[in-house]
Amino acid sequence: MTKTNPGRFFEDYILGQTLRHAVPRTVAEGERALYHALYPARHALYSSDEFAISCGLDGSPLDDLLAFHTVFGKTVPDISLNAIANLGYAQGRWLRPVWPGDTLRAESQVIGLRATSNGQAGVVWVRTTGLNQVDEVVLDYVRWVMVRKRAPASPAPDPVVPDLAPAVLAEDLIVPEGLSFDAYDFDLAGEPHRWGDYAIGEVIDHVDGVTITEAEHMLATRLWQNTAKVHFDATHRPDGRRLIYGGHVISLARALSFNGLANAQMIVALNAGAHANPCFAGDTVRAWSEVLDRADTQAPGVGAIRLRLVATRGDSAAAALRGPDGTYLPEVLLDLDYWALMPL
Amino acid sequence: MTKTNPGRFFEDYILGQTLRHAVPRTVAEGERALYHALYPARHALYSSDEFAISCGLDGSPLDDLLAFHTVFGKTVPDISLNAIANLGYAQGRWLRPVWPGDTLRAESQVIGLRATSNGQAGVVWVRTTGLNQVDEVVLDYVRWVMVRKRAPASPAPDPVVPDLAPAVLAEDLIVPEGLSFDAYDFDLAGEPHRWGDYAIGEVIDHVDGVTITEAEHMLATRLWQNTAKVHFDATHRPDGRRLIYGGHVISLARALSFNGLANAQMIVALNAGAHANPCFAGDTVRAWSEVLDRADTQAPGVGAIRLRLVATRGDSAAAALRGPDGTYLPEVLLDLDYWALMPL
Amino acid sequence: MTKTNPGRFFEDYILGQTLRHAVPRTVAEGERALYHALYPARHALYSSDEFAISCGLDGSPLDDLLAFHTVFGKTVPDISLNAIANLGYAQGRWLRPVWPGDTLRAESQVIGLRATSNGQAGVVWVRTTGLNQVDEVVLDYVRWVMVRKRAPASPAPDPVVPDLAPAVLAEDLIVPEGLSFDAYDFDLAGEPHRWGDYAIGEVIDHVDGVTITEAEHMLATRLWQNTAKVHFDATHRPDGRRLIYGGHVISLARALSFNGLANAQMIVALNAGAHANPCFAGDTVRAWSEVLDRADTQAPGVGAIRLRLVATRGDSAAAALRGPDGTYLPEVLLDLDYWALMPL
Repeated sequence: MTKTNPGRFFEDYILGQTLRHAVPRTVAEGERALYHALYPARHALYSSDEFAISCGLDGSPLDDLLAFHTVFGKTVPDISLNAIANLGYAQGRWLRPVWPGDTLRAESQVIGLRATSNGQAGVVWVRTTGLNQVDEVVLDYVRWVMVRKRAPASPAPDPVVPDLAPAVLAEDLIVPEGLSFDAYDFDLAGEPHRWGDYAIGEVIDHVDGVTITEAEHMLATRLWQNTAKVHFDATHRPDGRRLIYGGHVISLARALSFNGLANAQMIVALNAGAHANPCFAGDTVRAWSEVLDRADTQAPGVGAIRLRLVATRGDSAAAALRGPDGTYLPEVLLDLDYWALMPL
Repeated sequence: MTKTNPGRFFEDYILGQTLRHAVPRTVAEGERALYHALYPARHALYSSDEFAISCGLDGSPLDDLLAFHTVFGKTVPDISLNAIANLGYAQGRWLRPVWPGDTLRAESQVIGLRATSNGQAGVVWVRTTGLNQVDEVVLDYVRWVMVRKRAPASPAPDPVVPDLAPAVLAEDLIVPEGLSFDAYDFDLAGEPHRWGDYAIGEVIDHVDGVTITEAEHMLATRLWQNTAKVHFDATHRPDGRRLIYGGHVISLARALSFNGLANAQMIVALNAGAHANPCFAGDTVRAWSEVLDRADTQAPGVGAIRLRLVATRGDSAAAALRGPDGTYLPEVLLDLDYWALMPL
Repeated sequence: MTKTNPGRFFEDYILGQTLRHAVPRTVAEGERALYHALYPARHALYSSDEFAISCGLDGSPLDDLLAFHTVFGKTVPDISLNAIANLGYAQGRWLRPVWPGDTLRAESQVIGLRATSNGQAGVVWVRTTGLNQVDEVVLDYVRWVMVRKRAPASPAPDPVVPDLAPAVLAEDLIVPEGLSFDAYDFDLAGEPHRWGDYAIGEVIDHVDGVTITEAEHMLATRLWQNTAKVHFDATHRPDGRRLIYGGHVISLARALSFNGLANAQMIVALNAGAHANPCFAGDTVRAWSEVLDRADTQAPGVGAIRLRLVATRGDSAAAALRGPDGTYLPEVLLDLDYWALMPL
């Protein structure tokens, strides 16, 4: 019998079961530096210990998306090795910063199952939890994927589709302990725009673009210990192209959004996300954002802003999203909905 | 007179002499992170401080091959700058883990010399020792290379060929102090297969493949401060291709072997190795392993497994090695023989 | 009104004003490792804590050019986003080592302004200062750039051109506190050549070459948080090529100069520099140096050497610099004039 991991098929998931994902990972200054080499990340709170200390933290945490990718990567061998499509995210929250030296691991609970009508596949919903070395939850989120069935004839389970709110409620956002923007230095942060300067409905073109190389997306995806074959093996697809990990586009777009959203310092919730079209090396990625909502928090000087972050491919980042038929335009790569914390 | 290093020629080696290699190197969290960005390394003991602590160590050491490459890189300016071929390895042992913050340096003793019959070159055998900042040996190995002569007419030394056993004996393996697999967590390690589950002669196809880019192998090779021109300078070979450092293929194959050998946690000996064919950017590297031997150790719960690790290029990793004439097949890149430690 | 940074135009600079640049940055072991992966850097003092301690320091500082690039990168959004040309450097000094864990920020004072005669642009001179987390100056330098005007009709300011000495005087060089080369280990450093072995006028061909990839120069430039579009966005230039950050060529050439100048350990002054021609991925970079001057220092065993470092593109590094008309030859990429510290 083979000793290698064939991945799980739809039939292998049982409602309520908890999967304890393999290979915990200690993340430290090296991962931080690589994150900044791979993405044009400039948000000051993740760039400077001194800036983070001036905001009431003990030092600069590791980037919020670095934590997300590390946890996500652990789930791949158990969740998405045989996935046909990554369908969505919901109800994601960052509950606690990740500090250099922390060790992250991940668990996922199966919270929904529904076979497709053609009997070839099924949709699996999981709630994934990232934990640190003292078993504190650092983030959790719901994700659903379409997974191949081992055999079309195998019986379909009773369909269970979790009831997921379209967004995390503002009152459920967790602000990191101690965070205060009362002494926020807008000069050092890079832009003067406060929470109050952003209007719901406002659209910001982030202007800059990055042309992706094969080496960079593979370095990143490997660093998150994501083992999906399509990202690394150019012989896997008939067209000889390596599909870029969707999370790479998320980090790229978020970093590009500094230009216009330099003060949207910390991501605290992931409301929804769609990888609208595949991304490949050679694509030039741009981004735009739309302000969806604003809310207060209990922390001094700290407001919450809900943003749609869209990554596009090509020469322009014009804020178009969907065609007349309601589907994403071909140049749209990512449509992400998140909450971030900003100085009031 | 030129101040640059022309490299040593065969005539420059004296039996018994010790070469103290240049440029000691402090390795730390940055090198650890880069190792994980460059190779799909997932062995839990090198990924997580917590996992390593649960195995009786003080924390996660730096990857065993990271230590090897760093020591090897230091020898290049003195041993292989004028090498025509890297002929083999033998009698390699890892004697002590390398910890973040350690400073490595290297020395080599000339233990064999034999001029080729055509007078153009000679084979040099060296025993290379890697030492840490308190002069403890962290690893040593024998390597032999064919080196150009400065002048065909120069007299040949008396041939001395060291007597090298085909493999390190199981009783000579050094298990890191404190190591115990009694509380080994197979879930977190990623696979359930124990030492006892592997049969001598068993072959494991590691399935996954990685298509190599120029940037990645140069980043790696540079990180090990390996100065061989062929790896970096596309004008060096008539075909304009950069030859990939053989050690890059070793690390890639070893990391790929996680899929089927996730519990072969630590390399403790290098018995033999051949870089069967050159590797270039664009090659898709796969790997397979064969179980060659098994042995007990004195450490609690720790067994030793001797493995042949073969890296191949192309679409399949079929376990073929040599053609009818006994030479390596053209798609074989690496044939490595090593001992690793596994939970019983 | 747009919230993104359009960059400053010539009219936006006022003589005497101080610009406080955004996004302080904590640099640590991760940046150190990446520096060694990106450049073939081998100078022992920046490679080994033990070697640096043997030279009287507390440990190995971060590479002198890593500090320069980090400070330079911060100035880009305020100084050179609308620059047409990077015209020169002068009066640069390294005043204090940067240690892992330090946080760097930057300020620039406008010290000169002169509109061009055609009214389209102007030259801006700034003195940039890099500071650490306790506001000590770690380096400063003068740089001048040609910046687009917002409107050709806007009035020209009174021209003020700072009086800049052609080189930092030897007596103004700052030797890091505690530095001593009295116990210098030439074996470990890699070459036997002392300060006294170098004659003024001597030219050294550094022999080795590196062929640049897109991924590497982007990783580097991003790590310094340099936001200039031309380095990252292949759609920015009509020819679809990404212009390589001039500082990448500086670091590459300096690292290549190890072969012949292994003991020119620390850069302490930048006298002048010209990016003679643009550099692109695919170029094979080589380097040669010319000894321009030598001087004593007060520190035990420490001499200063003034060097011209020239980076070229192509198969040979023949020490030619300018054509018959006095302009740089097309294969010359960099002409840099600096002071370094060497063992006597």
